[in-house]
Amino acid sequence: MTGKAQILVDPSPRVEEMIFTGPSRARLDAVAELVCYWEPGRMPDEDVERLLPKTDIIIGQTHLDRERIDRAERLKAVINVKANWEPFIDYEYLQAKGIYVLTVAPCMGPAVAEWCLGAAIDIGRGITKADGLFRAGKEAYSLAGNRDAVSLFDAEVGLIGYGNLGRSLVPLLRPFRPTIRVYDPWLHERYLEAEGVIPSSLDHALNESQYLFLLAGVSTDNEGFLDADKLDRIKKDACVILGSRAEIVDFPALLERAEAQAFRLAVDVYPEEPVPPTDPIREAEHLVFSSHRAGGIPDSYKRIAEWMADDIEQILKGLPPLRLQRAEPTLAAKMRSR
Amino acid sequence: MTGKAQILVDPSPRVEEMIFTGPSRARLDAVAELVCYWEPGRMPDEDVERLLPKTDIIIGQTHLDRERIDRAERLKAVINVKANWEPFIDYEYLQAKGIYVLTVAPCMGPAVAEWCLGAAIDIGRGITKADGLFRAGKEAYSLAGNRDAVSLFDAEVGLIGYGNLGRSLVPLLRPFRPTIRVYDPWLHERYLEAEGVIPSSLDHALNESQYLFLLAGVSTDNEGFLDADKLDRIKKDACVILGSRAEIVDFPALLERAEAQAFRLAVDVYPEEPVPPTDPIREAEHLVFSSHRAGGIPDSYKRIAEWMADDIEQILKGLPPLRLQRAEPTLAAKMRSR
Amino acid sequence: MTGKAQILVDPSPRVEEMIFTGPSRARLDAVAELVCYWEPGRMPDEDVERLLPKTDIIIGQTHLDRERIDRAERLKAVINVKANWEPFIDYEYLQAKGIYVLTVAPCMGPAVAEWCLGAAIDIGRGITKADGLFRAGKEAYSLAGNRDAVSLFDAEVGLIGYGNLGRSLVPLLRPFRPTIRVYDPWLHERYLEAEGVIPSSLDHALNESQYLFLLAGVSTDNEGFLDADKLDRIKKDACVILGSRAEIVDFPALLERAEAQAFRLAVDVYPEEPVPPTDPIREAEHLVFSSHRAGGIPDSYKRIAEWMADDIEQILKGLPPLRLQRAEPTLAAKMRSR
Amino acid sequence: MTGKAQILVDPSPRVEEMIFTGPSRARLDAVAELVCYWEPGRMPDEDVERLLPKTDIIIGQTHLDRERIDRAERLKAVINVKANWEPFIDYEYLQAKGIYVLTVAPCMGPAVAEWCLGAAIDIGRGITKADGLFRAGKEAYSLAGNRDAVSLFDAEVGLIGYGNLGRSLVPLLRPFRPTIRVYDPWLHERYLEAEGVIPSSLDHALNESQYLFLLAGVSTDNEGFLDADKLDRIKKDACVILGSRAEIVDFPALLERAEAQAFRLAVDVYPEEPVPPTDPIREAEHLVFSSHRAGGIPDSYKRIAEWMADDIEQILKGLPPLRLQRAEPTLAAKMRSR
Repeated sequence: MTGKAQILVDPSPRVEEMIFTGPSRARLDAVAELVCYWEPGRMPDEDVERLLPKTDIIIGQTHLDRERIDRAERLKAVINVKANWEPFIDYEYLQAKGIYVLTVAPCMGPAVAEWCLGAAIDIGRGITKADGLFRAGKEAYSLAGNRDAVSLFDAEVGLIGYGNLGRSLVPLLRPFRPTIRVYDPWLHERYLEAEGVIPSSLDHALNESQYLFLLAGVSTDNEGFLDADKLDRIKKDACVILGSRAEIVDFPALLERAEAQAFRLAVDVYPEEPVPPTDPIREAEHLVFSSHRAGGIPDSYKRIAEWMADDIEQILKGLPPLRLQRAEPTLAAKMRSR
Repeated sequence: MTGKAQILVDPSPRVEEMIFTGPSRARLDAVAELVCYWEPGRMPDEDVERLLPKTDIIIGQTHLDRERIDRAERLKAVINVKANWEPFIDYEYLQAKGIYVLTVAPCMGPAVAEWCLGAAIDIGRGITKADGLFRAGKEAYSLAGNRDAVSLFDAEVGLIGYGNLGRSLVPLLRPFRPTIRVYDPWLHERYLEAEGVIPSSLDHALNESQYLFLLAGVSTDNEGFLDADKLDRIKKDACVILGSRAEIVDFPALLERAEAQAFRLAVDVYPEEPVPPTDPIREAEHLVFSSHRAGGIPDSYKRIAEWMADDIEQILKGLPPLRLQRAEPTLAAKMRSR
Repeated sequence: MTGKAQILVDPSPRVEEMIFTGPSRARLDAVAELVCYWEPGRMPDEDVERLLPKTDIIIGQTHLDRERIDRAERLKAVINVKANWEPFIDYEYLQAKGIYVLTVAPCMGPAVAEWCLGAAIDIGRGITKADGLFRAGKEAYSLAGNRDAVSLFDAEVGLIGYGNLGRSLVPLLRPFRPTIRVYDPWLHERYLEAEGVIPSSLDHALNESQYLFLLAGVSTDNEGFLDADKLDRIKKDACVILGSRAEIVDFPALLERAEAQAFRLAVDVYPEEPVPPTDPIREAEHLVFSSHRAGGIPDSYKRIAEWMADDIEQILKGLPPLRLQRAEPTLAAKMRSR
Repeated sequence: MTGKAQILVDPSPRVEEMIFTGPSRARLDAVAELVCYWEPGRMPDEDVERLLPKTDIIIGQTHLDRERIDRAERLKAVINVKANWEPFIDYEYLQAKGIYVLTVAPCMGPAVAEWCLGAAIDIGRGITKADGLFRAGKEAYSLAGNRDAVSLFDAEVGLIGYGNLGRSLVPLLRPFRPTIRVYDPWLHERYLEAEGVIPSSLDHALNESQYLFLLAGVSTDNEGFLDADKLDRIKKDACVILGSRAEIVDFPALLERAEAQAFRLAVDVYPEEPVPPTDPIREAEHLVFSSHRAGGIPDSYKRIAEWMADDIEQILKGLPPLRLQRAEPTLAAKMRSR
């Protein structure tokens, strides 16, 4: 087995089915020796220490300080299989040594975008609501049942945040020929224009959008930036879809306004998950609930497995990775888990 | 007012707000004298007889036999504002005389397509279902809540029927990069290929599709063609969306299979509407109900009003209409109301 | 052979290879009896008279007055294989009798659009010119050779005429993300907006366009409408491509301005064809000549053959044609050959 | 002026108009102090040494070894304004220190793609050739002049190399609905599939393509890889466009085959530039010459200026660059200038 590459697989809290869906495991076995740790928790230190010097690639959030990195002489890439950036991995030092730091974050984009679109049509057209009315024998037909139906066609759309989620969503919206405004303080307005969207201030996006997609990640800068005051700027009866992280918004204020029918709302994420069984929000009317289901569908995990295999094959051939996202040191620092 | 064109508006069962949403009425008033009949039912014969000789355009389903048509010497167009072709209008004779016979049918396409897409994502991703589970305190998070979630991305999609509805739906599906098979016995396979879809037999489309959109109109040929035997060919756990007319399918057999979870189902149309209050289908589980709400949203009626105004302006200038659909005599005969 | 359909093929001045390229002849033989007249000129009257009562479809410009049409009891379609509308065919009466009048005009659209795009890049980027300079040893490299190079990316583009040619060209231009203005007096501005182009007055289109595509057909109304005065409104150094018909423009004035380098020019059509051998325009500098080659490439004739076969198969099944264009009676009258 | 950023501009052999077209200079002046060296050759060492400690951004190919980089304590980015990677800049060390290494290479992509498309249509449709025939009084009209005309519509297309040039070209080809095969040994086949192209072996791409775009960069691995044997695999009468670098091909063998009409050819780059005045290739028939004009048009330099300004604004705000390309250390080493 001399010369075969070695991959250390230490993905907790991801489990095997999240990492190796489909034929990807077999593809990796063909090019490398895999050493996997599937127990709950992380691979024991003694195993890590022993394996590091011969490891070419690490999949997971194994603790990696400078000393460990220096001893991992063959290390070519570290693949972060969670969305967060852990403080116990020295990303800057990895990058300084020319080691790829990759993340599977974009693999979730398509599924989240699909859910966001489905949720937007749901609350715009009243799909979940109509099902309830029909079952209650209270349905109305045709125009009588559609008095408040709004449509994405030619609509004013706002995206708060244009990272992986926003970039996955925009192509799904295009055939509706909407006007798309984007607020994202990390992106240059000329870059946004080149993407075919309209750079916008936060207030303008909130005021003007019939559909408002909340897709920003949480950084050290922006926690709760959608506070009560900002929420009051949302256009009356807009369709608001919270698809990224609950921490970006004053969550109680958001729900309060939805219940008061200031706007329509679909929510996938919560400040605390699981939501406590007796949490009164379960009774809230006039909104559609999901349970952190926008991204983590089987197809997303299959995409992770495939893209990892693709990029590992590239890297072991001495070629740059193409599919996973490279860490952006500046931003990774801001995006770190608390 | 000499020389100003005259438009006879006799749209029953459409009502004023369905025909003249937005500024369209003002646009028509600028180019013609409108004589409208908004009472329930059709314009009285004596009014029609009196007005016909000076009428340039008829909006509605006014009875038009050969004799009347011959007397309407200035008549340039008849605009059918319902989806059906009425037997008491002699379409062939109108066309023989070079009078445009136009229908607003395509104006409903975008809204129906949007609903179909929303319904497909709903049953594929479990949006309505998840809302119910959350409210019942039975939700599961992330992958645990997504065991049976399927996605339109790269999916096998089947369209049964490729008329106005199918043609409106396909562009909305494209960004998901699906394989799209179409069964439509009225369309040449080379035409379908040029549209970028795969011509398919009915059985093949039923067998292969993870998402199956039932979008055929009802003709004299095809009533109930999706019978129990055909329904049994649908792929296990497919997402089936009934968006056109209930008459094309053995409706009780369809619901029975959905309840038995042979496939997932969203339904917008019923053999009898309104559905009787005590109809047991209201209790059926494992499907999403709508109430003939796919097409008739305010935006659709606004589109009707605008497209009519656009085409009337064209016709009164001596130019051909561009927006509404022209009757296809061969097919109109097959599509006639019973 | 009882019951087999009969097709009368009388296509002069089109010749066999223009009509039956590829396997289309075999496809038609499978569904019909073909009676073809390939000699120069039209099928003799006595043959026509004898064949008419059993003819289902006519391909060509056979003389068809009312009397003949009345005797052609089985006639279902007449397919015009030239771009012009001949006065000796009574199109209105054919249509009054529910007989399809079809034209192959749209089959030429793709090839013309491709040529127009190639010609636009040629004169914008100096492709033909650079080849001449290189051969003369006078070439300059990189920016020094590109001082006057202009690009379609983000350019201001004008289309004069938006029929088959314009509609084929616009999709080819889209990836350059240009602003596209269209002047077409037969089309409603709201129709043009829905096509994603900007309706424009003629003067505005002439003034503003860096690339100007002259694509209008000739009608009884518009001969020479691009007169010297209009040509003087063209933006300095614009790239002008004449791709439809020379009759729409004051041709000598057009060439004079190109030679004076008021704008750049590519020309495919001429007032008289072939251009006389000693015509001084052959010496004209600063423009690119073609010789009525934009549309009539082998692929276009193959498309004609295929689309005819497709539509004939449809019609013989009792279904409407889908590929060829139907005559528009109002416009056909205006477009008739002189 | 304390605290204002400092930009060192040392772009030789690029000159001022290539770097600061349009309003970009003013944008940079607003956010930084610019120190520019426009003389022929590079900024004198003593100036560089003096300026380095206070420099935030370097535009150009200033010599940068480890020692200099260590002294440039504020340095945030080095922007390479040439396509080549110079050996006297220590890119790895820059990256190890978290300093962005950016290149303007993608700014040339659109112009090169446009030229390649124009050249492909030119030799496929015979545009330059037809102009010569017309001027010689030898033109033929319509089909007679189009016997050998081929079209991009539905064509078999091959790309040799899929870097910035290929990625810019593919969107321009899409509306022709071609089959696109790509040979690029640095790219994973699954990445190419996700791009909507068909990964292909070199031989297969050469054999099957009616249009063949030679777009590979020169690396240490691939010089002259398109040798006489490979060139003999090109499909008879294919349209070959050499748009990247002459070094990838056996240039004399390429021209010999074009003259023998084995295939059609358009060439923009040469082994030696300028081509010697008396080089016999200037007499070669059956091909179209350009003079390294594909990329360097005014619009490309304008794009460089804008994208640099955009990214400098981002970087000076502490945000990552979005427009220019980041150096890929693995590949940069392979792509270095000789």
